[in-house]
Amino acid sequence: MKKEKNLKRQNRGHLSELPAQKYRLGGVWLNVLPDDLWLRISTGESVWEALQNTDVELESDCGGMGTCGKCKIKVLSEIGPPSTQERELLNEWELNQGIRLACRTRVFRDMVISTTEAEREEEYLKILTTSHHLTHRYIPTPELAPLISKQRLTLSPDIQQDGLSDLDAIKLGLGSEYNDLKAPLNCLHSLPQKLKKTQSRGTAVLHEHCLLDWQTQDKADSRYGLVFDLGTSTLVGKLFSFADGSEVAVASCLNSQSRRGADVISRLKFIREHPEGLESLRRLVVNDLNQLTSHLLSSAGLHLEDIFIAVAAGNTTMQHILLGLSPVGIAEAPFSPVLTDGLVVNAREVGLRLHPSALLYVMPVKSGYIGGDLLSFMLTSGVTEQEDEIILGLDLGTNGEIFLGSGKRLLTCSTAAGPALEGARISHGMIAKAGAIEGVSFEEGELHYRVIGNIKPKGICGSGLVDLVAVLLCCGIIDQEGLIRPPQQGVAEGLHSRIINQAGVNDFLIASPEESYDSRPVYLTQKDVRELQLAKGAIAAGIKTLMDKIGIGTQDIGHVYLAGALGNYVAPYSTIRIGLLPAVNLEIVRSLGNAASTGASLILLVKRYWQTAAELAQFIEHVELSNRADFNQYFIKHMDFPEESLQPDSIATKQTA
Amino acid sequence: MKKEKNLKRQNRGHLSELPAQKYRLGGVWLNVLPDDLWLRISTGESVWEALQNTDVELESDCGGMGTCGKCKIKVLSEIGPPSTQERELLNEWELNQGIRLACRTRVFRDMVISTTEAEREEEYLKILTTSHHLTHRYIPTPELAPLISKQRLTLSPDIQQDGLSDLDAIKLGLGSEYNDLKAPLNCLHSLPQKLKKTQSRGTAVLHEHCLLDWQTQDKADSRYGLVFDLGTSTLVGKLFSFADGSEVAVASCLNSQSRRGADVISRLKFIREHPEGLESLRRLVVNDLNQLTSHLLSSAGLHLEDIFIAVAAGNTTMQHILLGLSPVGIAEAPFSPVLTDGLVVNAREVGLRLHPSALLYVMPVKSGYIGGDLLSFMLTSGVTEQEDEIILGLDLGTNGEIFLGSGKRLLTCSTAAGPALEGARISHGMIAKAGAIEGVSFEEGELHYRVIGNIKPKGICGSGLVDLVAVLLCCGIIDQEGLIRPPQQGVAEGLHSRIINQAGVNDFLIASPEESYDSRPVYLTQKDVRELQLAKGAIAAGIKTLMDKIGIGTQDIGHVYLAGALGNYVAPYSTIRIGLLPAVNLEIVRSLGNAASTGASLILLVKRYWQTAAELAQFIEHVELSNRADFNQYFIKHMDFPEESLQPDSIATKQTA
Ligand code: FES
Ligand code: FES
Repeated sequence: MKKEKNLKRQNRGHLSELPAQKYRLGGVWLNVLPDDLWLRISTGESVWEALQNTDVELESDCGGMGTCGKCKIKVLSEIGPPSTQERELLNEWELNQGIRLACRTRVFRDMVISTTEAEREEEYLKILTTSHHLTHRYIPTPELAPLISKQRLTLSPDIQQDGLSDLDAIKLGLGSEYNDLKAPLNCLHSLPQKLKKTQSRGTAVLHEHCLLDWQTQDKADSRYGLVFDLGTSTLVGKLFSFADGSEVAVASCLNSQSRRGADVISRLKFIREHPEGLESLRRLVVNDLNQLTSHLLSSAGLHLEDIFIAVAAGNTTMQHILLGLSPVGIAEAPFSPVLTDGLVVNAREVGLRLHPSALLYVMPVKSGYIGGDLLSFMLTSGVTEQEDEIILGLDLGTNGEIFLGSGKRLLTCSTAAGPALEGARISHGMIAKAGAIEGVSFEEGELHYRVIGNIKPKGICGSGLVDLVAVLLCCGIIDQEGLIRPPQQGVAEGLHSRIINQAGVNDFLIASPEESYDSRPVYLTQKDVRELQLAKGAIAAGIKTLMDKIGIGTQDIGHVYLAGALGNYVAPYSTIRIGLLPAVNLEIVRSLGNAASTGASLILLVKRYWQTAAELAQFIEHVELSNRADFNQYFIKHMDFPEESLQPDSIATKQTA
Repeated sequence: MKKEKNLKRQNRGHLSELPAQKYRLGGVWLNVLPDDLWLRISTGESVWEALQNTDVELESDCGGMGTCGKCKIKVLSEIGPPSTQERELLNEWELNQGIRLACRTRVFRDMVISTTEAEREEEYLKILTTSHHLTHRYIPTPELAPLISKQRLTLSPDIQQDGLSDLDAIKLGLGSEYNDLKAPLNCLHSLPQKLKKTQSRGTAVLHEHCLLDWQTQDKADSRYGLVFDLGTSTLVGKLFSFADGSEVAVASCLNSQSRRGADVISRLKFIREHPEGLESLRRLVVNDLNQLTSHLLSSAGLHLEDIFIAVAAGNTTMQHILLGLSPVGIAEAPFSPVLTDGLVVNAREVGLRLHPSALLYVMPVKSGYIGGDLLSFMLTSGVTEQEDEIILGLDLGTNGEIFLGSGKRLLTCSTAAGPALEGARISHGMIAKAGAIEGVSFEEGELHYRVIGNIKPKGICGSGLVDLVAVLLCCGIIDQEGLIRPPQQGVAEGLHSRIINQAGVNDFLIASPEESYDSRPVYLTQKDVRELQLAKGAIAAGIKTLMDKIGIGTQDIGHVYLAGALGNYVAPYSTIRIGLLPAVNLEIVRSLGNAASTGASLILLVKRYWQTAAELAQFIEHVELSNRADFNQYFIKHMDFPEESLQPDSIATKQTA
């Protein structure tokens, strides 16, 4: 207890200069396939009610009374017995398939449903990797200063008597601060009719000293903005309300560019080799973003015309492609991006379907390899606002991006951690989507898995992998050098049957055919452990190199923040147990959720962060690891797992701490 | 002589704070129909040579040697006898028609030619009203500060080693002053290829702190810009060189919107009554401007991509239409334009075909009735830079726009002068185009006409009308009340045969069928004189009202500047003689040419004038005449012509003074 208290005080101190952190609580997530809509709904709400405000349409003759039997959905998560009405209206086969009536299905835990009967694998790919676990940096309402503001105005009729221009009438209404008010052409095009229609009682939509639109007065409180996380594999869109800074809706989809290459390197190759390559990739991502937008807006009952602002963050290549800028310079000497500055453009110019005057902010970057996503992460961590405390940040995706430092000095490096941490190159690895084991614990002699969407497991994602290896290390099934050992007496005997010797090498059976989603066994192979060792070794070596360069030891690290596909869900203890993180106090490790979108949302909600991001890009120092002898030595040294003599039983406690 | 000297000193004093005035001398104008190209060429140059740099193509097999007989043109101006080669290669009928060989025709006086044999009336409409008389405000080279600048740069290869972005490399090349350099998306799109192609030795095209393009180094000296005068009836485009501020080419055409109404009022009506009316008028003017641009550029051997800037000035309605902004508010209470501020937009956004990054500056206006054309005129007059001297400006077109004052206080008013001054509502009136009598003098008992294009007269334009009435007043043929009197003994007896009594009213025969272009007589009717009296009475009353309001007399006026269709060409003496101007000293009256385009060119060439124009719009005070008793009384009083006892013989001298 005492320790907890200390921690809290410490945290409060740390955050004193930052907006307070707050984890959104209450409610459960409903993931609606194939649209991959993620809805935050009240516990116990029916699926029918939850879908009322979305553009997902269910058939119905009875209007949700449970009598027509038409509002069929397929529940993919574990589900209790059917209701009497469902037994009457659905046949046996349907009930066994998980078919239920939306109006009779109440949601008490996170749930995945499909609104189409045919469950196509392709549709399953469109899965949210991030928002089933939502922790974003909370901004107290008084600190909100969104990029877009609205002012309800009644233009005095006197003002209009003497041939005053429409724009000048609005300037007068806004007061002398807006003497230099400007307006883009498309706002001016519709201004006279709109003023007439509203009889000069309306709402001015403002971006700095620029009028974007004139709306009816009832629109004054409809203030929303979007952020986009331009991930290489997954795109995430979030809708924020400016009234209280809350996240209203989240949607994500697989980045359609994946068809042209799974990673940045293969997409750069595609662009170099195809004359229209850049334009085709640009169109793919723009289409994806437009679809996300349409999901987000319909789930909140909004229209395209209601959105005047979006902020996008991604790696340098993704941001370049979105803007139609050639990223090929990033891949070749002298490794020049076209642009590192942040850019504010008309959203329509880029192809985004929002209000015609809407603006798109695209994050600044440091270089071709330090993108807007990493800067967003730094913003989210509050490191720029810390003078005295050293913060370590890890963005654990395909690359491991690391930063270490404070507002005084901030270093970054990039390690080619390899795709293992995203579940790739792992026998039964998968990205963090419904069906992926995302967490593992060992309690009372048995393994327990947390599976995304509460369905039976299909495979394992990065966070599950790290957890599992940590558990097996604790159980003594994996040794310090990474070997999966044959069953040993006295060591986790309940798991002995899961150690399978195949051609002289031991693999670990995570789920038997009976336990798995598609009746195929799920293994952790010896090779998988080796992949993980490579990945975690590179990251640990990167951290150590930065620590040396800044001249600190493990004890000097004040906070550790995790982000990225893995970083969001991994148990802090596991990262320390496998030696990915140095042996810091567990309590200083925190996941920042989807840090790219959170950083972008900070800018959306508090405009001064745009300037902070630009300064940050100038401020940070990049450390190139590839040619450093110290890094290579640390890398070899950190391939092994650290010694630790924790008893398996204590792991569960640690992991829920 | 002494007087001249005084005048010069006085002028220099007046201009001490202004760029010096300079009238372009040397060379002659060649007007090429049906393209209506106006070329300023060296005296004695052949038509063939003159057309080499244009996009007008002549047939030829001999390459201008005078042997193939294919380069036929029709000379509309007076022309001397054909050359021997022409006699051999052309037949009698052709020679009589004015057909000549371009390569054998040398131009010694302003000349109008047609490159098509069929002379269609429609093509004749495309006539320049302004530039056959070119007096623009000259800006000394050291004072040039054009809206667009270019800098030849060699980006150091060192700079490129460390992953610097393309834009940052250019920032470094430009020096610390350009730390905040921005670039529009379409510039960034092509930047990497262009940097590669030029091997980082190139030319930065800059608009303030914005990079518009990266060109090859040889483009560094190709610096040009356009101005557009958006006249209700005529559009004028001018191409300026930023190297020395000189006017490189001029083109004009009838405003195609005239098909939808001759004046502003009828176009506003068209827009109100047709849902697509605004868009169709906008397209018409944009097409016209694109055609003018293409003429201007081809005559200077330039391409669309060479032009990064255009400045447009017109009345408020014309500017609104060009921008696609509804002007209907201007016509109805509360007489609100959409916008009075000056606007800088991407030229392509408006539909102008220039470089994709090119900008269009559209002049600020004061109100629906005081447009960018009048502000341009004020800028041109230098009134804003005058603290002590009162300047009177008259823009004499369909409306008479008047300003009076100095940099301390500046009043304007608008008089519905009526269309007489533009040659409309006059029996044989026409706008100032080839065939219009634009000047009249009386020497040695005979009338002499100056006809635009040096052809036989077809009619009379505003300046000719004012001149003619002034002459007839001096001759005693028109009396103080405006009556054309029957022949009187001892009064201009050489003209007696021209006074024709028709149904009890006297008309004046300006040109007999033999003297006229199309064998039809050209008259000045009694009714025409009445129209002129109405127009000049309104203007004179407007001037007097402003003088009263500012509290000055005629002797306090330091300079009088004339602009507009009429103001450009009218003889100052005539304006005083008919009482349009108060009886100021003749030497202080000066025509400022096409003041709308000159004001726009000041902004193009010296960017601080953009700010000046904005301040001017705020500064000027408008005096509404329609409800003022004093104006109405002055109007009635000034319908008559002033008494004066000048002898006819002295008129010629006065007019050439
Ligand atoms: S809507 Fe009719 S049963 Fe659900
Ligand atoms: S070009 Fe052959 S005669 Fe003129």
